[in-house]
Amino acid sequence: MSMNSFGHLFRVTTWGESHGPALGATVDGCPPGVTIDEAMIQHWLDKRKPGQSKFTTQRREPDAVKILSGVFEGQTTGTPVQLMIENTDQRSKDYGDIMEKFRPGHADITYWQKYGIRDYRGGGRSSARETASRVAAGGLAREAIKQIAPNVQITGYMTQIGTHKIDRANFDWSQIEQNPFWTPDAQAAEDWAVYLDDLRKSGNSVGAVVEVVARGVPAGLGAPVYAKLDTDLAAAMMSINAVKGVEIGEGMAAAELTGEANADEIFMGQDGPQYSSNHAGGILGGISTGQDVVVRFAVKPTSSILTTRKTITKSGEETEIITKGRHDPCVGIRAVPVGEAMMACVILDHLLLHRGQIGENRGRIG
Amino acid sequence: MSMNSFGHLFRVTTWGESHGPALGATVDGCPPGVTIDEAMIQHWLDKRKPGQSKFTTQRREPDAVKILSGVFEGQTTGTPVQLMIENTDQRSKDYGDIMEKFRPGHADITYWQKYGIRDYRGGGRSSARETASRVAAGGLAREAIKQIAPNVQITGYMTQIGTHKIDRANFDWSQIEQNPFWTPDAQAAEDWAVYLDDLRKSGNSVGAVVEVVARGVPAGLGAPVYAKLDTDLAAAMMSINAVKGVEIGEGMAAAELTGEANADEIFMGQDGPQYSSNHAGGILGGISTGQDVVVRFAVKPTSSILTTRKTITKSGEETEIITKGRHDPCVGIRAVPVGEAMMACVILDHLLLHRGQIGENRGRIG
Amino acid sequence: MSMNSFGHLFRVTTWGESHGPALGATVDGCPPGVTIDEAMIQHWLDKRKPGQSKFTTQRREPDAVKILSGVFEGQTTGTPVQLMIENTDQRSKDYGDIMEKFRPGHADITYWQKYGIRDYRGGGRSSARETASRVAAGGLAREAIKQIAPNVQITGYMTQIGTHKIDRANFDWSQIEQNPFWTPDAQAAEDWAVYLDDLRKSGNSVGAVVEVVARGVPAGLGAPVYAKLDTDLAAAMMSINAVKGVEIGEGMAAAELTGEANADEIFMGQDGPQYSSNHAGGILGGISTGQDVVVRFAVKPTSSILTTRKTITKSGEETEIITKGRHDPCVGIRAVPVGEAMMACVILDHLLLHRGQIGENRGRIG
Amino acid sequence: MSMNSFGHLFRVTTWGESHGPALGATVDGCPPGVTIDEAMIQHWLDKRKPGQSKFTTQRREPDAVKILSGVFEGQTTGTPVQLMIENTDQRSKDYGDIMEKFRPGHADITYWQKYGIRDYRGGGRSSARETASRVAAGGLAREAIKQIAPNVQITGYMTQIGTHKIDRANFDWSQIEQNPFWTPDAQAAEDWAVYLDDLRKSGNSVGAVVEVVARGVPAGLGAPVYAKLDTDLAAAMMSINAVKGVEIGEGMAAAELTGEANADEIFMGQDGPQYSSNHAGGILGGISTGQDVVVRFAVKPTSSILTTRKTITKSGEETEIITKGRHDPCVGIRAVPVGEAMMACVILDHLLLHRGQIGENRGRIG
Repeated sequence: MSMNSFGHLFRVTTWGESHGPALGATVDGCPPGVTIDEAMIQHWLDKRKPGQSKFTTQRREPDAVKILSGVFEGQTTGTPVQLMIENTDQRSKDYGDIMEKFRPGHADITYWQKYGIRDYRGGGRSSARETASRVAAGGLAREAIKQIAPNVQITGYMTQIGTHKIDRANFDWSQIEQNPFWTPDAQAAEDWAVYLDDLRKSGNSVGAVVEVVARGVPAGLGAPVYAKLDTDLAAAMMSINAVKGVEIGEGMAAAELTGEANADEIFMGQDGPQYSSNHAGGILGGISTGQDVVVRFAVKPTSSILTTRKTITKSGEETEIITKGRHDPCVGIRAVPVGEAMMACVILDHLLLHRGQIGENRGRIG
Repeated sequence: MSMNSFGHLFRVTTWGESHGPALGATVDGCPPGVTIDEAMIQHWLDKRKPGQSKFTTQRREPDAVKILSGVFEGQTTGTPVQLMIENTDQRSKDYGDIMEKFRPGHADITYWQKYGIRDYRGGGRSSARETASRVAAGGLAREAIKQIAPNVQITGYMTQIGTHKIDRANFDWSQIEQNPFWTPDAQAAEDWAVYLDDLRKSGNSVGAVVEVVARGVPAGLGAPVYAKLDTDLAAAMMSINAVKGVEIGEGMAAAELTGEANADEIFMGQDGPQYSSNHAGGILGGISTGQDVVVRFAVKPTSSILTTRKTITKSGEETEIITKGRHDPCVGIRAVPVGEAMMACVILDHLLLHRGQIGENRGRIG
Repeated sequence: MSMNSFGHLFRVTTWGESHGPALGATVDGCPPGVTIDEAMIQHWLDKRKPGQSKFTTQRREPDAVKILSGVFEGQTTGTPVQLMIENTDQRSKDYGDIMEKFRPGHADITYWQKYGIRDYRGGGRSSARETASRVAAGGLAREAIKQIAPNVQITGYMTQIGTHKIDRANFDWSQIEQNPFWTPDAQAAEDWAVYLDDLRKSGNSVGAVVEVVARGVPAGLGAPVYAKLDTDLAAAMMSINAVKGVEIGEGMAAAELTGEANADEIFMGQDGPQYSSNHAGGILGGISTGQDVVVRFAVKPTSSILTTRKTITKSGEETEIITKGRHDPCVGIRAVPVGEAMMACVILDHLLLHRGQIGENRGRIG
Repeated sequence: MSMNSFGHLFRVTTWGESHGPALGATVDGCPPGVTIDEAMIQHWLDKRKPGQSKFTTQRREPDAVKILSGVFEGQTTGTPVQLMIENTDQRSKDYGDIMEKFRPGHADITYWQKYGIRDYRGGGRSSARETASRVAAGGLAREAIKQIAPNVQITGYMTQIGTHKIDRANFDWSQIEQNPFWTPDAQAAEDWAVYLDDLRKSGNSVGAVVEVVARGVPAGLGAPVYAKLDTDLAAAMMSINAVKGVEIGEGMAAAELTGEANADEIFMGQDGPQYSSNHAGGILGGISTGQDVVVRFAVKPTSSILTTRKTITKSGEETEIITKGRHDPCVGIRAVPVGEAMMACVILDHLLLHRGQIGENRGRIG
């Protein structure tokens, strides 16, 4: 219900804005006995941290997480875990134009229209900084998953920047950590570096597609109608800043398939059902099949660009705007660890929901 | 939280399965004083009803809705409205293969794996019949919206069947009600009829893309993080059977745009801000801009086809299956009124949420 | 969130009013595989049914429950169970005064002030008939509990009518089913019959206290802050019509105890901790101890009485009112099965919540 | 749903334990534009602060609140407000017995049985320190209420300590702030001081009754079934540590009244309906009448006492325990501002809910 919470049983409420004293995540419903410390969460925050390559914003913040509650002697207690990240880079600057003008393609205008409050310091609650809280919560979710379903592995990567897509023939899991784009296609990484560098220098920005895969998810998670695993994944990914589309398995391309082509045929393997293909993205009727759960989302280009755009002021006068300052030429890059975090939160939540309602999987095959 | 409820303040819980005595929607939180009767809801159910053209399943049911509660002397009372549809076509038949075999691409197998219960009579809760309940609830939502935001108009239509897309140059709102595909492109309707008739005769099926537009939505609905208007729309559409992808505005194509191309420039109109374009689909930072709210979703092809596919039985034996009987060659067609209903429910819910937290829009422009 | 739902994972939404076509409960989150049929639920409805003795309203309705969904071949499927009770006694009558006048002590006036709708036919949604839906849901909850925690036994009984209290020395579980007051004190039952008969003849009414005990509840259910087992029990009981007070264990009398007197000393028994007393009512820090869970609530006297009372009309004129017609001299009697039903729903919900977050109890003693 | 959240639209999630680095409240759904600063919240925390008289624990902490988010330039922004209180008195001490033994009447044992985690440092999450977070959230709620319903006034006070009750004839609102017991009966305050001083010296403790009144609440807040105003108040108060009973209006005494005595007769006043009495405690059918909303709750005596009590250890051995150290002889005293805070949160939440569903009261009288 609440506007800043996500999840059913593993419930994450994020708080804080880009230029306040701190931001964080209040995590309720974490199982007790999960081994966790700040370093384990910091690992994932460091992955998202800006300023790691020339392709991300040069705002430099340590994004150091502090655990304020819910952990005792290195283990979760089962009570709320408060994960706080202090904002250190609140340098006073001349906000100039932004105080009065709305940036086209940015939440400035809708924020003002809804709340009548303008936090001109950097996007306030609509800043991408909010996603740091999600990454922290996702880090905790990953450790809790290890306890309940240790085979689950969650990995995100980029499959497209602008019109440049990866070649699936080059897909190599081991490449993902080897390049600043978290892409499994080494060749694409090289090409994108050149392309993005040009774009960055011209002060423009571009969109991207991120794919997140969860391997080892047990069959049976989800439910047929509104608490579908794919419904919750769609909500999770669409809630990330700048995301405009979400796909499960074939996604929008499912429209182009015939029933014959789309059917993932079923065989009997050693440990249960096996499938000839995975058009379904690991989810049938809202419930996981045991195959890889595959989600993809599109991130729009940053609205903060160096090109002059037409806009209006709070008082309704027509004018123009250029957004100077540090920005990400492709915010999609930093969305990779955010997408992974959301996947982790959704998977854990559904593991708990399933255990709550069902206890354990009931329908054995074979 | 609950697995069969949707919405925050206007909260719809659907219940029932394809071959039980009845199904319906329990609608909680409807404002009082909304003028409603069964005929007003029946109007929308008739639009979704099967058997209206040769392109939809020949299962024929009146889908007659009964209002069991929450309405007194033609007006909602503010208490739960129970909308019930009795199942009349429960003809006993030979379920044969389906009792033991899983249909590839169908929820049969995951349902069994989760619940250990197999309602072999027709998909049980995962049947598309569940969407009749949504359409009924959506009919009520439309009337409530009229009371609060009378300018809102919600319209769905098909933009693609298989690889065949509409030509946006032919877009004509008045065509939508003139063809069995609810498409605004009259030429496409003709072409699709030929294409789909062939497909139907061959016992195959195909996917589709549906677009739903809400015009006249006031600026300010939604919130920046998890209760984003687009998050709730994504969840709403992804929760519809067979949907595999959801897009807002540019959707997945946003990945291909530069920041310069994507920026919807802002001007000052008579009644407030005007935009040069609507790449954003009417939503910025999770909050409505006052432009058309544009959602698109892909529906996969029906898994019930006449082609033999490989599968397994409950006891784990490998076998083959053909699904005979009445089916939709393109379930996307009947998804149009369902998408409209979900849009209506989400818009109403956010109108109420906004009124609850804010009272009225606070930030005036000009 | 929704206004007519109760519970976290086992979630009951009741709907319907006293004089509409039907009322019922939409039950979401019930575990699959629970053996259930209409007769098993009818058993509890019959216990609550009016007209069983001269001490309850003479409105005679069969209150026959129909299961419309969520049960297949005698077992719950894990999807929503719709329990419907048709209203058969909707006799047209002269509502006379009630259409315009507000009954003192009745929800007539607040209902009107909130909704601007007056369902004058019998209290609408605020009628005690709504509690039939709860009893139906509670019947299902009892069967689900049997599957998860088979030792749980839930029993309600009256401990007070007006100023007449039971003598705890006479407490005999076997007496509860032997008298129309569901009281464990046979002597009290005799005395109350005389007292209440006089009161009934004079057209007056009186309040009562009901106690509900759950025996065999495992230790560990609940949580320390807002999802306390006692918080949910207090909400459950206070949500029943006419309830004005709720107590756990010592209840209000806890105020009179010293810390020394209140401490339930702990010993080690065969199967775990044993306590010298149960001032706590089986709940410490919001979590069950394994002792009997003891809840008590006060029901106010019916406001429909034959004495003339001063009141006003919808148009604000001062006047007087007498409520003729069938009524309960002590609604507390029929609140006994309702209290039991709410206890069953809360206990089941917490069994599922606990299993969801924790899996199984972790802290062994001894 | 979540275990540490309270409220529907104005939603408070508290976090933190007695001996961690900090605790606080994450407040979601606060209306924008509420004027607030740390001092305004500190005012209420100071009222609850320990060590203010010899009748409360001598643990001395400043309980200084910091606003970490959701406020910009002195006004709420409509996004989450994070209220943090750092724990300063975490002095290392010898926990001795408490690490292995369970205190009778304390959550030690249930906590361990549920979570398998023992935060022996001071009660962890079940410590009364958690209520500081509630008081902070309540301080914010009070300011938001001022904006929406400026006539609302919320006042709590003690009406009973042990067996010593106030004399209602002495009731004087102006006395409440004049004595350490927040009691409106000056004579009682004197008597209680003597009584409690003796009790304190003997190392014993005692229970209490607190009453909280909200004056000026508009008619129409609440709903008839589960989101009753009294249901939410009962849950709110029962969720406070050590509370064992909750009453609305007549409360448990309603059982002793006849329908004739209980009916609050209605007259027509200048500004709407007036009542001859307020047995109902300002709530009929779950909806506010416009009269004073009156809630009462009983607080049990502290379990930490100097008397030796029998108990067991984690390993199941029988033993004895004395709880030395700083403690409250009557925790009921410090429960007064906590009860007020919960009342404020519930009233604000229902103001928002009502505005969301209804817009404004619809049913005019006269």
